Amino acid sequence: MNQRGRFITLEGGEGAGKSTLLAGLRDHLLQRGVNLLQVREPGGTGLGEAIRSIVLDPAHPHISPESELLLMFAARAQLVRERILPALDAGQWVLCDRYVDASYAYQGAGRGQPAERIAELERWACAGLKADLTLLLDLPVATGRARAAGRGEADRIEAEADAFFERVREAYRSRAEAEPRRFRVIDASQSADNVLQAAIAATADLFETAA
Amino acid sequence: MNQRGRFITLEGGEGAGKSTLLAGLRDHLLQRGVNLLQVREPGGTGLGEAIRSIVLDPAHPHISPESELLLMFAARAQLVRERILPALDAGQWVLCDRYVDASYAYQGAGRGQPAERIAELERWACAGLKADLTLLLDLPVATGRARAAGRGEADRIEAEADAFFERVREAYRSRAEAEPRRFRVIDASQSADNVLQAAIAATADLFETAA
Repeated sequence: MNQRGRFITLEGGEGAGKSTLLAGLRDHLLQRGVNLLQVREPGGTGLGEAIRSIVLDPAHPHISPESELLLMFAARAQLVRERILPALDAGQWVLCDRYVDASYAYQGAGRGQPAERIAELERWACAGLKADLTLLLDLPVATGRARAAGRGEADRIEAEADAFFERVREAYRSRAEAEPRRFRVIDASQSADNVLQAAIAATADLFETAA
Repeated sequence: MNQRGRFITLEGGEGAGKSTLLAGLRDHLLQRGVNLLQVREPGGTGLGEAIRSIVLDPAHPHISPESELLLMFAARAQLVRERILPALDAGQWVLCDRYVDASYAYQGAGRGQPAERIAELERWACAGLKADLTLLLDLPVATGRARAAGRGEADRIEAEADAFFERVREAYRSRAEAEPRRFRVIDASQSADNVLQAAIAATADLFETAA
């Protein structure tokens, strides 16, 4: 009989180094023999990727905050049911690039959608699924944006102003403070290797509880 | 100063004759001098039409009921804010092919999403906007499906089984019973001309209250 897998989510603002960390953390987990599924939000399913292409498309500059929130949860509801829950049930671990905390940060603090509204959507759209561990890559907004600026054209959300990303960062940090057991805040201004070592250390507990 | 416009929605199952009635009713309202905006759901905006192409696409056969509900409201939230409310505020009348009753019927009764969940979404996603008049084209399921069968390939929702459409019809009828002032139920088995005359009669009150 399979033991249920572990669900790790990765959060952070622009330029925090999520992609680099994801690659390193994936390699580490595979080396430790973990059967791993890696997915991203919004996306990860046929429906979710179609939604992703809409919601990040600079051709839709005037998406209402309400619609953006609903689209993010439409993609998430599908991802949870179609891929994450079946994988966890089969004993796989799941590494997800953003999850519900991102909606509290971006659609909530960023766009002004009330937290209670997001909590209600989380309750039924995510089928009660919470992360076992959330790694938050924390970085001053200016530093992150300077890093991200080298990447070419910004998507619809990346094109927001600094004040938006300051609200996003504060929301992430206050969520981490409110749930210290689930969150591990990592100083993303460190070298990529130090960030990876901090993330690897944070996952150690998951192996213990899984043993 | 403009007087606020009237908001008319049209609901009904497959093959009930919505398109034919829409064309006739539009002509009637234009002849009476109404400044009319006609829209459809899901759709009516750039974002909404992109969502429509996803949600009706037979290439996404396994959209979760939760995701379908969220997508419908994402399109609706945009349509209300971007087109319907500005039009009504400017004194235009709006004729909308499906609105929130369709979610109670299709995603609620059809797909099993709880009515309270839909009511909560209606509360914040639709900005409190309710139709002044809802025309319900009512028809036995078998009759409607036989009519619709002549149209070529079915979209993802049209491909559902009869029991699904029986639940949809019952939901529409019970909503009409619960709100007799807003709804006018029209027997869609009549000739197209009789259906149109019934719809025209139903709109008469809107001119009186608008006078």
